[in-house]
Amino acid sequence: MRYFVSDTEFPLECSGSLPGITVAYHTFGHLNEDKSNVIWVMHALTANSDVADWWPHTVEKGKFLDPDKYFIVCANVIGSCYGSTGPCTPLNDGTPPLYGDFPGLTVRDMVEAHRLLARHLGITRIDTIIGSSLGGFQALEWLVTDPEIARRAVLCATDFQCRPWLAAINKAMYMAIGADNDLGRKSPDAARKGLEAARAIALLSYRSHSAYDMTQADDMTAQTDPFKRRVHSYQAYQGQKLADRFDVYSYLTLCRSSDTHNVARGRGDFKQALGRIKAKCLVTAISSDILFPPQYHREMADMIPDAEYHVIDSEFAHDGFLIEHERLDSLIQDFYKRTDNNKIE
Amino acid sequence: MRYFVSDTEFPLECSGSLPGITVAYHTFGHLNEDKSNVIWVMHALTANSDVADWWPHTVEKGKFLDPDKYFIVCANVIGSCYGSTGPCTPLNDGTPPLYGDFPGLTVRDMVEAHRLLARHLGITRIDTIIGSSLGGFQALEWLVTDPEIARRAVLCATDFQCRPWLAAINKAMYMAIGADNDLGRKSPDAARKGLEAARAIALLSYRSHSAYDMTQADDMTAQTDPFKRRVHSYQAYQGQKLADRFDVYSYLTLCRSSDTHNVARGRGDFKQALGRIKAKCLVTAISSDILFPPQYHREMADMIPDAEYHVIDSEFAHDGFLIEHERLDSLIQDFYKRTDNNKIE
Repeated sequence: MRYFVSDTEFPLECSGSLPGITVAYHTFGHLNEDKSNVIWVMHALTANSDVADWWPHTVEKGKFLDPDKYFIVCANVIGSCYGSTGPCTPLNDGTPPLYGDFPGLTVRDMVEAHRLLARHLGITRIDTIIGSSLGGFQALEWLVTDPEIARRAVLCATDFQCRPWLAAINKAMYMAIGADNDLGRKSPDAARKGLEAARAIALLSYRSHSAYDMTQADDMTAQTDPFKRRVHSYQAYQGQKLADRFDVYSYLTLCRSSDTHNVARGRGDFKQALGRIKAKCLVTAISSDILFPPQYHREMADMIPDAEYHVIDSEFAHDGFLIEHERLDSLIQDFYKRTDNNKIE
Repeated sequence: MRYFVSDTEFPLECSGSLPGITVAYHTFGHLNEDKSNVIWVMHALTANSDVADWWPHTVEKGKFLDPDKYFIVCANVIGSCYGSTGPCTPLNDGTPPLYGDFPGLTVRDMVEAHRLLARHLGITRIDTIIGSSLGGFQALEWLVTDPEIARRAVLCATDFQCRPWLAAINKAMYMAIGADNDLGRKSPDAARKGLEAARAIALLSYRSHSAYDMTQADDMTAQTDPFKRRVHSYQAYQGQKLADRFDVYSYLTLCRSSDTHNVARGRGDFKQALGRIKAKCLVTAISSDILFPPQYHREMADMIPDAEYHVIDSEFAHDGFLIEHERLDSLIQDFYKRTDNNKIE
């Protein structure tokens, strides 16, 4: 992991400014001479800059993130707790961590941090931007903000706005976290129980009935204690796992960022905003995704001037973007092939 | 509202016994001479015995709960807080409310209470049992426990088992409630914030993306504060509304009951259990229901010997069973007509 430190004041879209930012990032492979082999991967909510770790079997020779061919960049979003400036890190001017007083970040603020890093790395044009879920929010914002930045983009299990549905899920999580009266304590381990509950809620939206029913079935014909269900332990365990690696203030900051997602803000309507995109886009939905159902992607693909729409048929719901890496790989590599004749000059 | 009080010890399937039970119930219309006009309605999670109140436009002349034709019974489930014995009521032997120490109830325990009430009312045969959601759980249990009890049944937006999906949603709610350290206080207003969060979680499963997106849209082209979403207030308001009328201990008791739902327990497999049902069944799903998706109903209808399967095409998801009362009315009245020739003798 490397760090890019910018000590220039960093203005935020809605919440004043930060006295500079630190951006933690990973790179894989080598930037070629004409800087035409950059793939920029944007991570989802609680992931980090090590895409080889959280997206298994993708950063590999012959795969869509082939480090022999591409220079792959992935940066931890600001507001997170994996190295970039966030609620539990000191600010760049030495101010101690702000915890619950950390300013609200929009998706556009996250993208501004990516743009500073790109400039720092000498990257002015990206071959392919890839984003799933909250990563897709960032990818879309970047493509709309700066239509020349990328030649191609892969947008998977994502949306061009935060719909009432996602904001409703977010609010249920804020309420669960708010029910924990340990919230407000200035420590990265504050409100752990609230955070665990929030994770259990989020998982519902990532898995849907199809994935839970498939992977967490009890033997209903040999039930001994009817109150005890296998998935109860699973939900509790997943909550604990997140609380072991994440903190409640970063979690709230990132969820609240997702509330702000709206490529149309200040840009007319969605059609006008998405109409600015010059990149050739591969828009991919997961058939059983209840968080970002296929129809959201259909709408997106219809408004982006040069977009292909695909649906991966899978029972893994939203998490399908991580689990169905083989099918995604074949879709993306086909997309590469069809669009490779139009390389960055 | 009337009360049936049984001071005989009431054994529970898994948790010892209660020293008798009180069952609050409503009736509408008049029992005819040969007692052949009974419709028994089972209510869902947080509803009560006043079906005319919680299921608008159904207990009306000419509707499927026509009080001029039928004698309609609806009883508040035990474990609830609307008059029947529950965590916040004194027990029948004068023991003060048990709150968090109230014993775990299974769906079968609920049905045993209904059976006692039926006996008390002199009802040995029901024309039609109607249940949606948790009400459908009870209806199915009753039909399997006592195959002679009803001539017909309407099962809507429900299931014959608590699948991992519902148990996962339940667990997320338990975790949110457990994050509130006011839980355990021996008062009906304990853990109010946790209960509010739990309701916000439950609503996600009742509404799905379709209903939220349809009813809670922000004007995304004129956004002023991107962090403020209309649905946030809605979720908070719905949480408060429930906490004003329900208590956390009854809520936990009823959700935990739903975890236990399994018509096959001790009866072989699902096909054997559902195969016992002698009633003619109308099984109805709501197309956009993510809590009990149509395929669950298809499976149910396939295993019940005499069942019809219908899907109401609606964007209102699980709540469609309440909102789509007109379409449900027409489905049920058609069902009545087709099956009326085979009246109770």
